Amino acid sequence: MKTLLGGIEAGGTKFVCAVGTGPDDIRALVRIPTTTPEVTIGQALAFFQEQTRQHGPLAGLGIASFGPVELHPDSPAYGFITSTPKPGWRNADLAGPFRRALDIPIGFDTDVNGAALGEKQWGAAQGLDTFIYLTVGTGIGGGALINGRLVHGLLHPEMGHFRPPRDAKADPFPGCCPFHGDCFEGLASGPALEKRWGQRAESLPPEHPAWALEAHYIAQALANYICILSPQRLILGGGVMAQGHLFPQVRAEVLRLLNGYIQAPALLEHLDSYIVPPGLGDRAGVLGALALALDAARPGRGG
Amino acid sequence: MKTLLGGIEAGGTKFVCAVGTGPDDIRALVRIPTTTPEVTIGQALAFFQEQTRQHGPLAGLGIASFGPVELHPDSPAYGFITSTPKPGWRNADLAGPFRRALDIPIGFDTDVNGAALGEKQWGAAQGLDTFIYLTVGTGIGGGALINGRLVHGLLHPEMGHFRPPRDAKADPFPGCCPFHGDCFEGLASGPALEKRWGQRAESLPPEHPAWALEAHYIAQALANYICILSPQRLILGGGVMAQGHLFPQVRAEVLRLLNGYIQAPALLEHLDSYIVPPGLGDRAGVLGALALALDAARPGRGG
Ligand SMILES: Nc1ncnc2c1ncn2[C@@H]1O[C@H](COP(=O)(O)OP(=O)(O)O)[C@@H](O)[C@H]1O
Ligand SMILES: Nc1ncnc2c1ncn2[C@@H]1O[C@H](COP(=O)(O)OP(=O)(O)O)[C@@H](O)[C@H]1O
Ligand SMILES: [Zn+2]
Ligand SMILES: [Zn+2]
Repeated sequence: MKTLLGGIEAGGTKFVCAVGTGPDDIRALVRIPTTTPEVTIGQALAFFQEQTRQHGPLAGLGIASFGPVELHPDSPAYGFITSTPKPGWRNADLAGPFRRALDIPIGFDTDVNGAALGEKQWGAAQGLDTFIYLTVGTGIGGGALINGRLVHGLLHPEMGHFRPPRDAKADPFPGCCPFHGDCFEGLASGPALEKRWGQRAESLPPEHPAWALEAHYIAQALANYICILSPQRLILGGGVMAQGHLFPQVRAEVLRLLNGYIQAPALLEHLDSYIVPPGLGDRAGVLGALALALDAARPGRGG
Repeated sequence: MKTLLGGIEAGGTKFVCAVGTGPDDIRALVRIPTTTPEVTIGQALAFFQEQTRQHGPLAGLGIASFGPVELHPDSPAYGFITSTPKPGWRNADLAGPFRRALDIPIGFDTDVNGAALGEKQWGAAQGLDTFIYLTVGTGIGGGALINGRLVHGLLHPEMGHFRPPRDAKADPFPGCCPFHGDCFEGLASGPALEKRWGQRAESLPPEHPAWALEAHYIAQALANYICILSPQRLILGGGVMAQGHLFPQVRAEVLRLLNGYIQAPALLEHLDSYIVPPGLGDRAGVLGALALALDAARPGRGG
């Protein structure tokens, strides 16, 4: 029998908590609405304590969180959510309560870094050591594995907040990022689509001009990531990417933007397997949390 | 006595070859004009063979090359310069002749990855594990160390070829990159400055409007790198950065562009030590090649 892992996909709307060993073996899963840290974290903790009573101690717990988060293990705020605008959650200690209550190794990272690790373990990035997982949803964020390790650096990447070129004549919408206006997230997140076109992204038909523009911005972003990070694959998830017709448009536009400069067969001949949806579908988030648990439970890793 | 290393900074104009152990101990250095692969590589090889006769076998040779280059050790073209427009050098085997003639470990990477490694070893990135070295010269290129290892990924980063936002009213110059027009290199390299303003960059006085615009593009690039890679430091070298007055302008503009989103003291309080010139000055290139040699000579590394 494999050792059981726990995972929390900590989102701004809900916490998804699961216990299992991987995609084909989820033993229990609950969704808890994100209200206050006390209540939400309390409910999540109660779930894992009940699971521990049933199955014995878990081998590890992974927490894949919305952010920004503090990831430096030697910082006093390690495991905290930091400068989020979400009411009640600014400077909330997310990992601490679990560390104090459960005596098991705990992995803590951004939601997108978790998802990247899950895709590496069980999904569309198996066998790769350098790739990006990007989510296009309420926000836009990216996680990167480089040379087999997650990127943190200064804090962690904020891949949705760089500024792409924008043709103000073709797209007069000024963007909706409270910090940057027309950064990538401000121009191309789900809420940006909704504000620009006056209806929810889900309700825009495939032939609506929204999608050609959306594909253009996403392709700009991917071309930038390719130049700057040289990933071996780009995995695109999140609510907006449920519009599957975006993929061929994005691929064509990436090719056009790079214009043959980067002579890699992955780009020139195998683009369909270079820009792909998550192998784990809409479970990429929670399975990413399990992957963080697996990583934390590895021998030689501290809790 | 320390073991001697050899290094080649292989540039499009000249090859700088050196033998030594580090910045304070260069025993011999020659500059060889870049003509044809046969002649230039032959002269470089003769230099190292003569050095070997004088000092005995070198512990390793590092080659930091202009590109694009093939870096996958299992590719038949490993060690080649690939799709360069430079006449005679397309698909030239650069590392091979040295590997065949000298029976020592050989490190091969891009010039900017070499420079990054040199700055880590002896320069402005000592003690850091995640940072970028950017050169703004005839071309624009960046090398990155992430979690202590150089980034290669698909091929290697091409950090000069992403597209920054451009206000065509403020700057009607369409850019001069043969592949992308107004990518970062097309807008902000030394030759771009020369084409836009009709005189060599060296001759533009510090109060010329060229420099505010140049600082703006460089800052756009750095803000993008910060969002996408989360580096702990940005090191800026190359001919154009010899204009030291660019540094304060670039720093101020980076702060303005990020607009407080990334709450890191390195950015908010210590920006003067976050965006810096190379610690190795204009020897960053050739010392980077020595650092590649040092890395290749480490026990446990193959040649
Ligand atoms: N099928 C869909 N097509 C287009 N947009 C969608 C779709 N489903 C959700 N969205 C948009 O994606 C955003 C939600 O993103 P999602 O990834 O589901 O959640 P979150 O980012 O909050 O974790 C909303 O702005 C919503 O309008
Ligand atoms: N002091 C200077 N001020 C501004 N630009 C300079 C200066 N020195 C060199 N340049 C410009 O930098 C470019 C050469 O870059 P450099 O880094 O010296 O060489 P390369 O990139 O070819 O290795 C040229 O376009 C030149 O005009
Ligand atoms: Zn933003
Ligand atoms: Zn270009």
